[in-house]
Amino acid sequence: MARITDVTARLFTVPLDEILVDAKHGDHSHFHLITATVTLDDGRTGTGYTYNGGRGGHATAAMITHDLAPFLVEQDAENVEQLTHAMDEHLHYVGRGGILSFAISAVDIALWDARLKGTGQSLVQAAGGASDRCKAYAGGIDLGFDLPKLLDSIRTYLARGHNAVKIKIGQPTQAEDLDRIKAVRDFIGPDITFMVDANYSMTTDQAISMAKAMKQFDIEWFEEPIEPDHFEDFAKIRDASGIKVAQGENLHTLHEFRRALPHVDFIQPDASNCLGITGWLEVAKMAKDANVPVCSHGMQELHVSLVSSQPHGGWLEVHSFPIDRYTTRPLVTEDHLAVAPDVPGIGVEFDWSKLTPHEITL
Amino acid sequence: MARITDVTARLFTVPLDEILVDAKHGDHSHFHLITATVTLDDGRTGTGYTYNGGRGGHATAAMITHDLAPFLVEQDAENVEQLTHAMDEHLHYVGRGGILSFAISAVDIALWDARLKGTGQSLVQAAGGASDRCKAYAGGIDLGFDLPKLLDSIRTYLARGHNAVKIKIGQPTQAEDLDRIKAVRDFIGPDITFMVDANYSMTTDQAISMAKAMKQFDIEWFEEPIEPDHFEDFAKIRDASGIKVAQGENLHTLHEFRRALPHVDFIQPDASNCLGITGWLEVAKMAKDANVPVCSHGMQELHVSLVSSQPHGGWLEVHSFPIDRYTTRPLVTEDHLAVAPDVPGIGVEFDWSKLTPHEITL
Ligand SMILES: [Mg+2]
Ligand SMILES: [Mg+2]
Repeated sequence: MARITDVTARLFTVPLDEILVDAKHGDHSHFHLITATVTLDDGRTGTGYTYNGGRGGHATAAMITHDLAPFLVEQDAENVEQLTHAMDEHLHYVGRGGILSFAISAVDIALWDARLKGTGQSLVQAAGGASDRCKAYAGGIDLGFDLPKLLDSIRTYLARGHNAVKIKIGQPTQAEDLDRIKAVRDFIGPDITFMVDANYSMTTDQAISMAKAMKQFDIEWFEEPIEPDHFEDFAKIRDASGIKVAQGENLHTLHEFRRALPHVDFIQPDASNCLGITGWLEVAKMAKDANVPVCSHGMQELHVSLVSSQPHGGWLEVHSFPIDRYTTRPLVTEDHLAVAPDVPGIGVEFDWSKLTPHEITL
Repeated sequence: MARITDVTARLFTVPLDEILVDAKHGDHSHFHLITATVTLDDGRTGTGYTYNGGRGGHATAAMITHDLAPFLVEQDAENVEQLTHAMDEHLHYVGRGGILSFAISAVDIALWDARLKGTGQSLVQAAGGASDRCKAYAGGIDLGFDLPKLLDSIRTYLARGHNAVKIKIGQPTQAEDLDRIKAVRDFIGPDITFMVDANYSMTTDQAISMAKAMKQFDIEWFEEPIEPDHFEDFAKIRDASGIKVAQGENLHTLHEFRRALPHVDFIQPDASNCLGITGWLEVAKMAKDANVPVCSHGMQELHVSLVSSQPHGGWLEVHSFPIDRYTTRPLVTEDHLAVAPDVPGIGVEFDWSKLTPHEITL
C-alpha cells in the first residue's frame, strides 16, 4: 500500500523551431506539454505527461486537476492498471476518448514512474524486456516544405543516423505528392525505408488511387490515408493496392483499437492518448494476438522503452515535436536503432529549467 | 455577416434535491451546467449550454475559453453548421468526441440562439416544424431507491401528467430487477408506457437473459443494456428477445451514430454532447433515412423543440436533472404531451439569479 497524497498538473506551451504543417491540423507553431506528478505517502513521486499540437492543453490540465486528482487522492498507487481503468469508468460520461484519454494517460505514466522507482526496474524491463532497442524512423511534419527544404530535412535525418524516414502527403494534387515521393526515393536510394502519412486527408477512392500510383516507390506503409473512424476501409486500400496501411495516433479507447486492428498492417498507439503505458501495453497485447507489429506515435523518449520491450515491436516514430530536448536524456540511437534507457522509472526526467520559461499559469 | 466578438463560458455546480444513483455513474449529488454566451458585432447575443453528471465541467469550460473562443472570434456567426464542423476539425487531435463534443455543443446552441433571435424564428419551426408538441416520458435515476420510494417517484410522475415512465435497472441480481419491474407494471397498470435503462451495466448474455425475462411486462424499450461501443450487439439483444433497444446519450460523433443506427430501434442523441443542435439535426436526418424514431436524452427544455420538429420524432426524455427549473419556462406539458416554446431563439432563457449562487469561479 502506498497512498496517493497529491496529483499536480502543469501546462507548458513549447515553441517549435519553425512552423510545421500537415494535411489536416493547420500550422503548428508550438506544442502543449502537460505534466502530471503524483506524490505518495512513502515519499516517492512519479511524473508522467501527455502532449498535443497546441490545442486542448488547458482542458487536459483542468481534467487532471479537478476530476482525476480528487478521485485518486487516498487511493493505493500500487494498483496502476486498476486505477487507470477506474478513472476511465469514473469519467465515462464525459469520456470514451477525447481529452479524458489524454488526461488519464499523463496520470497513468506518472503512476508507472512511481511504481518503477519503487521496484528499481526500468520501463523496458517491466514492460516485457524482449530487447533493449528497436527500429526507429524520422517522421517529418513537412507538408509545407518546398522540395529543396524537404530533401534538406531528409538529409538531416540520415545524418542523425536514421535509416528510415516518413514524409507527409496531401498536396493539392496527386501529381505533386508523387513528384515529392519520387524525389525523396531518388535522394535516399533503394536501401532506406520510406513511409508516407496523409493525416486522414483523403477519401477511400483517392487513397486507393494514390496507393496504386506510389507503389513503384517501395513505400513501407501508408499512414492514415483516410479518417480514422473508417476502420474497415483501411484494408480496402491495402487490398486494392498492395501497400500496407497503418493507423493509431487518433484512437483513444481499447474499443477503437479492437475495431481498427483487423484492418491494418501496423498499429501505432500513442501512450500519451490511449490511457498511458497501461493502455499502450493492452493495445500491444491485442496487436500480438492479431499478428500486427506494434509501433508508436510521438514522444520517442518514452515509446523507445515500450516498442523495444515487445517481441512484435515494430517501428518507433522519432517525431518532430522534440519533447526529448527538454529531458535529461534525449533519444539515443546506435547503428540506426533507438536504445531504451536503463534506469529505474519510465526513463524520462524533465529538465524543468528548460521547461519553466514556457509554463502557463493555471 | 455578423462578426463574433466574444465567447464566454460559465460553470455552475447545481445541487440535486437528493443523491441519485444508476448502475454505472456512482452517486450524483449535483450536476454541472456549463453555459456559453456568444456576442455578435450587431449587438445580438446567444446563450447555449451543456451539462454533465458533476464531472468534467472545468475541462469543458476550459476548452470553450482557451480553444473555441479564440477560434471563433472574428468569424461570421451566420454559418453555424460550418463553424460547428470547423471547430470539430480544428480540435480533432484532442477530440473525436469526449469533452470536445460537449464544449462545441454549448457553443453551437449559443450560435443557434443568436441566429434565431436574428430571424425571429422559434427553434421548433427552424428545425422542421412537424409539430409543436411531442410524446414525453419521465426518466428516473432511481437505482438506489427502495421499492416504496421507487413507486412513490412513479406516482409523482403520473401526478405531473406523464403517461410514460422509465426506471433504472442493474440491481445485484436479475431477480431484484424483475421484482421492481413487476411492481412498477402492477402499479401503473397496462396503459402507461414503460421503459427500462441499464446504463450499459450488463454483458450481452446478461442483457439477453434480462430482456427475455422482462418481456412479459410490456417494456417499450431496453436502453443501453450494454456498452455503447458494442454497437452490433444491441440488435442481437433485440433479435433474441423481441424487446426493442435504444441508445445515444453516450455517442458523441456522427461516425458513432452511423455505426449505432442499423442496430437500434430508437436513437437518443443529446444535443449537449453530439455537436449541439447542428449535430442533433444531422443525427435526426440519418435516423429518418434508417427509419428509426429520433428521441432525446436530458435537457428537456431544449429537446422539446427538436423532437417536436421532426416527422419521425419519438419520445422526449424528461430527465431527473432539473435544468429547466433554472430557466424562465420550465417544461410545459398538456394532455401528456410536451409543448415547444413559441419564441424567437432556442426557447431556453436562464434565470441567472437562480444559477449565480452555484457558480464556480474559473
Ligand atoms: Mg501520423
Ligand atoms: Mg439513459
